[in-house]
Amino acid sequence: MALWGGRFSKTTDAAVAAFSASVAYDQRLYPYDIQGSIAHVRMLARQGIIATADAEAIEAELLAIRGRIERGEFVWREDREDVHMNIEAALIERLGEVGARVHTGRSRNDQVATDERLYLRAEAARLDGLVAGLQRGLLAQARAAGEAILPGLTHLQNAQPVLAAHHLLAYVEMLERDRERLRDCARRLNRSPLGAGAIAGSTLPLDREMTARDLGFDEVLRNSMDAVADRDYIVEFLACLSIAAMHCSRLAEDVILWVSQRFGFIDLDDAFCTGSSLMPQKKNPDVAELVRGKTGRIYGHLMGILTILKGLPLTYNRDLQEDKEGLFDAIDTMAMVLTCLAPMMATARIRPEVMAAAAADPALMATDLAEWLVRQGVPFRDAHHMVGRYVRDCAERGQALDQASLEQMRQSIPLAQPECLELFAARRSVAGRDLTGGTAPSQVARQLAFWSRRLETAEETAP
Amino acid sequence: MALWGGRFSKTTDAAVAAFSASVAYDQRLYPYDIQGSIAHVRMLARQGIIATADAEAIEAELLAIRGRIERGEFVWREDREDVHMNIEAALIERLGEVGARVHTGRSRNDQVATDERLYLRAEAARLDGLVAGLQRGLLAQARAAGEAILPGLTHLQNAQPVLAAHHLLAYVEMLERDRERLRDCARRLNRSPLGAGAIAGSTLPLDREMTARDLGFDEVLRNSMDAVADRDYIVEFLACLSIAAMHCSRLAEDVILWVSQRFGFIDLDDAFCTGSSLMPQKKNPDVAELVRGKTGRIYGHLMGILTILKGLPLTYNRDLQEDKEGLFDAIDTMAMVLTCLAPMMATARIRPEVMAAAAADPALMATDLAEWLVRQGVPFRDAHHMVGRYVRDCAERGQALDQASLEQMRQSIPLAQPECLELFAARRSVAGRDLTGGTAPSQVARQLAFWSRRLETAEETAP
Amino acid sequence: MALWGGRFSKTTDAAVAAFSASVAYDQRLYPYDIQGSIAHVRMLARQGIIATADAEAIEAELLAIRGRIERGEFVWREDREDVHMNIEAALIERLGEVGARVHTGRSRNDQVATDERLYLRAEAARLDGLVAGLQRGLLAQARAAGEAILPGLTHLQNAQPVLAAHHLLAYVEMLERDRERLRDCARRLNRSPLGAGAIAGSTLPLDREMTARDLGFDEVLRNSMDAVADRDYIVEFLACLSIAAMHCSRLAEDVILWVSQRFGFIDLDDAFCTGSSLMPQKKNPDVAELVRGKTGRIYGHLMGILTILKGLPLTYNRDLQEDKEGLFDAIDTMAMVLTCLAPMMATARIRPEVMAAAAADPALMATDLAEWLVRQGVPFRDAHHMVGRYVRDCAERGQALDQASLEQMRQSIPLAQPECLELFAARRSVAGRDLTGGTAPSQVARQLAFWSRRLETAEETAP
Amino acid sequence: MALWGGRFSKTTDAAVAAFSASVAYDQRLYPYDIQGSIAHVRMLARQGIIATADAEAIEAELLAIRGRIERGEFVWREDREDVHMNIEAALIERLGEVGARVHTGRSRNDQVATDERLYLRAEAARLDGLVAGLQRGLLAQARAAGEAILPGLTHLQNAQPVLAAHHLLAYVEMLERDRERLRDCARRLNRSPLGAGAIAGSTLPLDREMTARDLGFDEVLRNSMDAVADRDYIVEFLACLSIAAMHCSRLAEDVILWVSQRFGFIDLDDAFCTGSSLMPQKKNPDVAELVRGKTGRIYGHLMGILTILKGLPLTYNRDLQEDKEGLFDAIDTMAMVLTCLAPMMATARIRPEVMAAAAADPALMATDLAEWLVRQGVPFRDAHHMVGRYVRDCAERGQALDQASLEQMRQSIPLAQPECLELFAARRSVAGRDLTGGTAPSQVARQLAFWSRRLETAEETAP
Repeated sequence: MALWGGRFSKTTDAAVAAFSASVAYDQRLYPYDIQGSIAHVRMLARQGIIATADAEAIEAELLAIRGRIERGEFVWREDREDVHMNIEAALIERLGEVGARVHTGRSRNDQVATDERLYLRAEAARLDGLVAGLQRGLLAQARAAGEAILPGLTHLQNAQPVLAAHHLLAYVEMLERDRERLRDCARRLNRSPLGAGAIAGSTLPLDREMTARDLGFDEVLRNSMDAVADRDYIVEFLACLSIAAMHCSRLAEDVILWVSQRFGFIDLDDAFCTGSSLMPQKKNPDVAELVRGKTGRIYGHLMGILTILKGLPLTYNRDLQEDKEGLFDAIDTMAMVLTCLAPMMATARIRPEVMAAAAADPALMATDLAEWLVRQGVPFRDAHHMVGRYVRDCAERGQALDQASLEQMRQSIPLAQPECLELFAARRSVAGRDLTGGTAPSQVARQLAFWSRRLETAEETAP
Repeated sequence: MALWGGRFSKTTDAAVAAFSASVAYDQRLYPYDIQGSIAHVRMLARQGIIATADAEAIEAELLAIRGRIERGEFVWREDREDVHMNIEAALIERLGEVGARVHTGRSRNDQVATDERLYLRAEAARLDGLVAGLQRGLLAQARAAGEAILPGLTHLQNAQPVLAAHHLLAYVEMLERDRERLRDCARRLNRSPLGAGAIAGSTLPLDREMTARDLGFDEVLRNSMDAVADRDYIVEFLACLSIAAMHCSRLAEDVILWVSQRFGFIDLDDAFCTGSSLMPQKKNPDVAELVRGKTGRIYGHLMGILTILKGLPLTYNRDLQEDKEGLFDAIDTMAMVLTCLAPMMATARIRPEVMAAAAADPALMATDLAEWLVRQGVPFRDAHHMVGRYVRDCAERGQALDQASLEQMRQSIPLAQPECLELFAARRSVAGRDLTGGTAPSQVARQLAFWSRRLETAEETAP
Repeated sequence: MALWGGRFSKTTDAAVAAFSASVAYDQRLYPYDIQGSIAHVRMLARQGIIATADAEAIEAELLAIRGRIERGEFVWREDREDVHMNIEAALIERLGEVGARVHTGRSRNDQVATDERLYLRAEAARLDGLVAGLQRGLLAQARAAGEAILPGLTHLQNAQPVLAAHHLLAYVEMLERDRERLRDCARRLNRSPLGAGAIAGSTLPLDREMTARDLGFDEVLRNSMDAVADRDYIVEFLACLSIAAMHCSRLAEDVILWVSQRFGFIDLDDAFCTGSSLMPQKKNPDVAELVRGKTGRIYGHLMGILTILKGLPLTYNRDLQEDKEGLFDAIDTMAMVLTCLAPMMATARIRPEVMAAAAADPALMATDLAEWLVRQGVPFRDAHHMVGRYVRDCAERGQALDQASLEQMRQSIPLAQPECLELFAARRSVAGRDLTGGTAPSQVARQLAFWSRRLETAEETAP
Repeated sequence: MALWGGRFSKTTDAAVAAFSASVAYDQRLYPYDIQGSIAHVRMLARQGIIATADAEAIEAELLAIRGRIERGEFVWREDREDVHMNIEAALIERLGEVGARVHTGRSRNDQVATDERLYLRAEAARLDGLVAGLQRGLLAQARAAGEAILPGLTHLQNAQPVLAAHHLLAYVEMLERDRERLRDCARRLNRSPLGAGAIAGSTLPLDREMTARDLGFDEVLRNSMDAVADRDYIVEFLACLSIAAMHCSRLAEDVILWVSQRFGFIDLDDAFCTGSSLMPQKKNPDVAELVRGKTGRIYGHLMGILTILKGLPLTYNRDLQEDKEGLFDAIDTMAMVLTCLAPMMATARIRPEVMAAAAADPALMATDLAEWLVRQGVPFRDAHHMVGRYVRDCAERGQALDQASLEQMRQSIPLAQPECLELFAARRSVAGRDLTGGTAPSQVARQLAFWSRRLETAEETAP
């Protein structure tokens, strides 16, 4: 009979018990469940609701249970439904009547919300560290790239030459925003639902501020109904992870392109690739592909929780039990993604000569020619049109842009000077983009220094 | 070293191995993997590609492996990546060089698609049976409901009285369409990718028609690249499940409303409810709530696979490995949902007197009055307006619609006759809706008979 | 005052009126609304519910209204909420009391479901034709490709050589399944809700079979509550479109890769590309990119309707009004996607020499060597390993696979014969994959003939 | 010929032009496009890139164009593609060569990102005000509710009595978090992409800090590739709106329940309801239903943009054009939702007597009895069990919990005292929950005072 079974004349249907039990996955909340229970019983004792000796006995036994769990000695029972009931039942088995006091003035509704918030606070910090790890991997690779130049692409078409380091640092920027978002989320969720009870608080003189302080929460949630009905923190956390996963999928796409035979811009270490069961020559960028694919499951979990919450009346509804598996899976997935990507990016080998060959396409420098004309006083739109004409004429003559004679160039660009034909050098082009955020080596060096300071100082380790 | 590791000079990174291994979940495909391999080696022998004795030895050993798996004696190894490599490696361990012939002319790309299609064909049939089970549960309850009347709702507002049985049969209709869709999907996926190899077929003289016949496929897929790149069958299957889950969520919502203290239309058996850790009086419709919540995860899995496939170039990409976990979870979830809902619906107890009290609201019969006027020759729109006026007048007088005098009624409805005041009886109203699909007892009886024939014949068991 | 406003003592709030009006978008249903109303009044007259002369007058005026709408002379009024009320009010304006009879025995609940089903039946047929158009564009290109060979890719890595035509036909297969799905959907939705009324049918002697026949429905929906509450047909339609959009996004991705400077496999006609506001040299594959991006909105609309329906109690709820805009946008989007892709694919120019250069990579033929060994009796797994070893040895020597001497090859492949070095020819490799669905020219020719017959016969035009 | 058309020998296909034009919807960005262009040309002049007189002429003409747009005199042309090209072309029409200088050192890639960020900064502020408006509507209703008590629900089952005001304030809390999130998002997006050019910055001496200051951005984006490829701000904005929409859907659900005949807790003003085309008695809570349904489209738009961004390689790809329609629609929808909900909530009339009757169910006070036992020293779990037993015994005797005699109560609760039977009063129960966040009138009064201060001060109007 379940601990709540007093009013029931029949036990739960076996299929239903299996359907509704959550202990298989919510057991991961045990450190937070125990932490919350300890704070709760200390407060109960301070408020005179239970005896101090009872509170101490409960605390000691909860710590013992935690030890058993950590050593793998604790038997989780599906018939005890969830992490909360498993721990409470174990406590009562050991302490009898004393253990039966732990749930005083508390409901699983406020308990689980407390556990989840403590858990997410910890996971936000862990993920912050893992994102920083990927940033460091990218930074290392950006440093190793030196002044290697590749064709910067828009629409996957040659656009303008950029430093490989500049390209890699774009991802460092995206990841930094992911960290900002996770911190905002962690700050917003660090509020205590404990003491909200099932829905309306308690008739016992609980001190919610005390437990909140003990558990390191910044505030106490101001409305008990909101405290048990709300799952914003889970949606927001999954939205943060979805955006981060999207960033990783974009990085993965670039890597998949770069290691393809058609690009050949980088080589991945064998340790991050696998082969084919049929084709002996294969070395596939599986990690990058899996990272790209994993985006789907994280998005899916976000859609899942949004669907669950849509149209739910106040307050707690059992639907909310479904808030965990997707969340846990998304966190585990994101952690694995970051753990694999960081060394993969750090150990990749850039092939600067292949990049350089691709960046030698003079069409990449067409904008430089238009901007040269602007410096001669030609209105930009006219300059753009003249150069566009020149591009077309060259194409019709089957020439690359740097193969025309000055006379040929002057057919479409009357102002052309001999130096125009010297503009078609990628290195010169890159050097010329010397403004904040530009790809000039001097600018990229500034960015590298900035990120080195930010990512490699001691403070970094404590976000 | 992996079976495909000939060209690699380094083993896979440990984190990457864990990240990319799928055996923890794809092992459930083993019966189909073995079935497919047996068909494949028989064909290889028939085509003279391997010796008949070798094919027979492989088949025998595959059956032995299946036995070991079924008895729980087979050790699944994560370092062997997936179900395919685990079984092939086990085969080679036992049979040596003979076992090393099983993968001749085959790739994991066509192998896994074959496994998945065989698996889904079987699951479609199983789920069809489970949906039929829920239909039967609803049918049983509809029969038990007899002529109980409840207020039919639109906008959750009293609309017109209906038979409770009519309401329940609406769900039987929805579920029937779910079965139709699953059958269409199962038919469409029953086509053989085997022999498509990695991407382009094989230079060996494989007979794809032979393996297709042996495996019960209706056709051979006509294009090898499509055969290994396609995952339509998974999206379509998940779309079918999403619609079915949506139907179950609507049923769940009705049940949650009906068991609430405000409705009180039905009681659920204790076996399908649970209590509260704090509030001793509670008996919560957890199964219905969980069913409603589970919709989120199934939708999420659909969005997941759609995301994964978006923009993937041909042909196989490792992202496709992510096609399984969501699918499996959706199928397991749907099976549990159906398994729990069927007996919950069959064992619920209707409270006809509570329903009847709610259905006594005379406003439910306002349309009957308008239609009475139509029968007197009043244009419907005018009749609607008169009755609307009558409703407002009654509200202003604080009267129910059946409490006015004929004189009062005639203020808004000049044609009113004494019989108009007799229209406000739910039973009469229900009986009057005697057209195909209507809620008159005679019509509902026809529907009950129809569904009894369809759901309770022997043929039903073999869709 | 709205036509339904008899009981209201106050008009609708202006913001609410704007919020709830749907006529801005549901007016596109007018042909079906009028068609449905005509069938309805004919039946009312046949059943003696209204006079034949009245029915004829209504029919004539409805046709006149249709004419005015088609000529752009009809004034849609937001204060009349929706397409139904706009047309009914216009009818009453002209016909007075006679027009006020059109809505006899009908509710907007069954009316809108009727309109939507008729609309989708027509759109399914139109989209079928547009998908066929894209298939024809691909087929034309596949024919034009002749025996051009490109490197078939898995994991975006060189896998095995394939005919360009084979690659293009893979998409024809996918699109064929899209057409199958749309037809299944169209068949399933072709059932009549008309006569279901608001929720429970009518007390008037309506003949639902008659209107169903008149409107070309295959069946009458058997349950009035299901008839007004169901929106399966919209979800299923959007699921079909989502899968089709996914296919188009994959094709778009291949095109984007192929036109990139790194691939260079095809050229698009200028008419399907646009330039850059800044970079004069740019010719971007915008259509393909937009097609890829449009996938997002179609998936989003599917997610939207699934969310809307989740947990809705029976029967009609106003949430269902939200079923249209996403659906209409998805249909319009898909129609535009198909309309643009078909000529873009048909007019693209393949660059066979660039493809051939890429397909000359001897590593693409590594599998052929392994299969050669199988033909010599070597177990496949051993053959795979030997060739893998050979690949590694060549890489270490900096050789392509066809540059080694026979002695060098024999270090890893003791059985190697001189003919092994001749296997590294793409054309020979392609020709060898001569099995159903394989990429051999003979097989591809069979497929081209098959699709020519199917897509270019007269029957095709009438799906 | 398009402004970028110099290199093209053919104009864009008509269907493609329609497919790719965005001016029909992106024209709403015009104030920000003009604001950005003015800041840009001022900077160009300050940097000596164009003449001051030219910059002034451009600024004056841009302001004139804005005037024409605001007066509805500007003709948007689809053949000019987008808002940017329409305005630039109009400028050139008027100013000739001078106008042709506006796009110097700029690409549509950085331009559109600038426009979007300025637009979202403004919309975040507007929506903040609208959310505050709904909070004020709820606050007004909460004040009007006084000490009305309703049954607080968990699992839609009677749980514990709560003040109606407490219930309403739970939504005020949720909405406050929505405002926090929008502010975090607005802060994070307030960074300048202007000057990033197409991908790599410019060879002209742009001063990005100057334009950033002029436009009120907090920072300059540090990496040009990130600046043009990033759409985080759109995803995050849509995630904020999705959570807010979810909150509104929950409020809508509660309202729909409360106005149903079975609850009857509140009445909505006629102005926020509509009637039925068939059923004359109907007054439906359409606004609440539409609000609930609108959640679907907002979720869908979030899913749409996430899908679009998944796996996009750097940097700008035309897929990104698809970032706007869903965003705009979500913002418009959310604004309408808030605009309609605020007065609907403010004008609703609570029916305290109906609530009180529902809250009189003594089972709502079962927890109070258990907590009374705790105060007598009974361990909570034992108290819970005893009371559960008492509930069951009463049910078996067909008694309400407050109808048993003390002797009957002592069968399951040996310690029971006469005062136990007095615990079953909702008002007493509510008063007893006097802790932070509890539902006691004193606590709720504190919360009302808190929200009055926060929502009704002058500062509030300037977030």
